[in-house]
Amino acid sequence: MERRKFIQHAGLAGILAAGVAPAVHAQGANIRWRLASSFPKGLDTLFGAAELFGRKVKEMSGGKFEISVHAGGELVPPFGVVDAVQQGTVECAHSASYYFYGKDEAFSLDCAIPFGLNARQMTAWMYEGNGLKLLREFFAGYNIVNFPMGNTGAQMGGWFRKPIKSLKDMKGLKMRISNLAGAVVSRFGVVPQSLPGSEVYQALEKGTIDAVEWVGPYDDLKLGFYKVAKNYVYPAWWEGGPQISLYVNDKAYASLSAENKSIIECAAAIAHIDILAKYDARNPKALKELVGNGVKLQRMPKDVMDAGWKASQEVYAEISAKNPRWKKIYDDMVEFRREENQWFRFAEGSFDNYMQSLKL
Amino acid sequence: MERRKFIQHAGLAGILAAGVAPAVHAQGANIRWRLASSFPKGLDTLFGAAELFGRKVKEMSGGKFEISVHAGGELVPPFGVVDAVQQGTVECAHSASYYFYGKDEAFSLDCAIPFGLNARQMTAWMYEGNGLKLLREFFAGYNIVNFPMGNTGAQMGGWFRKPIKSLKDMKGLKMRISNLAGAVVSRFGVVPQSLPGSEVYQALEKGTIDAVEWVGPYDDLKLGFYKVAKNYVYPAWWEGGPQISLYVNDKAYASLSAENKSIIECAAAIAHIDILAKYDARNPKALKELVGNGVKLQRMPKDVMDAGWKASQEVYAEISAKNPRWKKIYDDMVEFRREENQWFRFAEGSFDNYMQSLKL
Repeated sequence: MERRKFIQHAGLAGILAAGVAPAVHAQGANIRWRLASSFPKGLDTLFGAAELFGRKVKEMSGGKFEISVHAGGELVPPFGVVDAVQQGTVECAHSASYYFYGKDEAFSLDCAIPFGLNARQMTAWMYEGNGLKLLREFFAGYNIVNFPMGNTGAQMGGWFRKPIKSLKDMKGLKMRISNLAGAVVSRFGVVPQSLPGSEVYQALEKGTIDAVEWVGPYDDLKLGFYKVAKNYVYPAWWEGGPQISLYVNDKAYASLSAENKSIIECAAAIAHIDILAKYDARNPKALKELVGNGVKLQRMPKDVMDAGWKASQEVYAEISAKNPRWKKIYDDMVEFRREENQWFRFAEGSFDNYMQSLKL
Repeated sequence: MERRKFIQHAGLAGILAAGVAPAVHAQGANIRWRLASSFPKGLDTLFGAAELFGRKVKEMSGGKFEISVHAGGELVPPFGVVDAVQQGTVECAHSASYYFYGKDEAFSLDCAIPFGLNARQMTAWMYEGNGLKLLREFFAGYNIVNFPMGNTGAQMGGWFRKPIKSLKDMKGLKMRISNLAGAVVSRFGVVPQSLPGSEVYQALEKGTIDAVEWVGPYDDLKLGFYKVAKNYVYPAWWEGGPQISLYVNDKAYASLSAENKSIIECAAAIAHIDILAKYDARNPKALKELVGNGVKLQRMPKDVMDAGWKASQEVYAEISAKNPRWKKIYDDMVEFRREENQWFRFAEGSFDNYMQSLKL
């Protein structure tokens, strides 16, 4: 990062605060940062968590540390946030790391990969496993200090114009699905389509594409996909617990007092809880509304899941062979996933299955 | 709470801080609080989260707000913490609310009841549903402001000297299980036993009791129950996601600046994440060790689960008829639980079940 640019954006106080923060703090110094979100305001669950983060930083610092929060495209393009934080154009950003798969496959491991960890396991890997440690090493290459700051929970597999009864119904399907998930489904005949969010609805309506994967009931309802495709398939086995992340420019971070570093960490933690809690609380009502509108819920056929699992293992072997940054983190995640699922299928799985079977 | 007692314990700074905190803060005022945990140091996952909470409060306040953390029995008895916070003997405490079922059945709803919410659903109910709002009203009657500060995840159903093959194997069983769960299992013939933690191992070894429910693999391994009872049954349907709580004396809380109130909230949030992440990361290895020691994992027979469900509904109807504080919170939780499980069985449930079926 250019020093000049950093000074310009962090403000003088940010520089002064380095090392001597408590004294400066007591004298009423102000730190002003900008956060670039990859998300539009309309995704209020995701965008709202960055606002909560900014509010908590301000509150906890007694107003001495302010972070203004900007929607995707306001300061930099939604997918330009890694570059912006790396270059110090903004001090921090909020994004889903799998968007940056094209830069390096390893980004996906900070968010979700097909048949990865569920939301709780991802948080456990980050906080108590080696996840955060390994990903911090990786992000250091982009001058970024990363923090977990949200998770959507398992997403829905998406909207299909025709029912999916078996693997053969997936062959030749033009589906809006990107990056690593796109690479995996292409192995069994799906034709992945990259489309800007703004064009997806119309393409699905016209039949230019046959299917689209988005998020889950709460976000999907707002976009109205149910009006043009009635088959709502679950789960998105390519995102069983996608994590959302806070990126902080490393020099901006280093310039903070121990006090403000801790404030960043704990404000990110409450925002981490906030996103999942909001999705968990809002998805049920949205799902009910969708079903009321004639949507047909359909379980992803087992042969599609199995084909996805097989294809994903092939893709992972290829990436592991050529990308040591991926391999180091992936291998650790795989071992953690093995242990987690060995345990989760007992107490957690049997409790959940019983509760779900009650059909209250 | 007696005013004199409060002043004595909160310290003068705590009083001075009320209302005029920013100025006082800048002048270097110190606030010193004490936290009484209900947990022994040996339960390092639970006790450790209170230490993390204290550490984060100190860091974020730049050392101006310190909370010393004390193990169960050090300042007040483990089950005396509600009284202690209510009376202002200590400013805050960390406990599992179902311990206080004897004071009022409604306490259990802040922690776990048979066939209640799982960990994620509980957090969603607290943060985004009406849970925290309703429980704050209830706790106000004890001069307490409560915060979610941990969850163990679904626990194990416990250690049984003989295998449990069906409901009839539960009849007449002397089992260490307490409070609401004890009241429920007694409906189908279990004889609940209350024993201090220190006496449980010996009673199980001697056969004075036939079974004991404790926590999960990580905590259970340390107590060595596997040496005297080989049947490890899952799940504890009476605690599918027990929440741990921070209790703050209301006057002590009111005396804090907006800054310190926010610091308390966010420090509790990171500790909330910490406990579940630790259990999720540590239980798998402990379970493996237990199985290596000859422990037999056994699913709770369906007829026991069904009998538990039926008995719990009877008990809840009786409590609802006589305790309006319980009824108000319980009714809201039941509606939230219905919606959660209707949604969780789709994306979340199908993803988890597939991952668990892989037997990696």
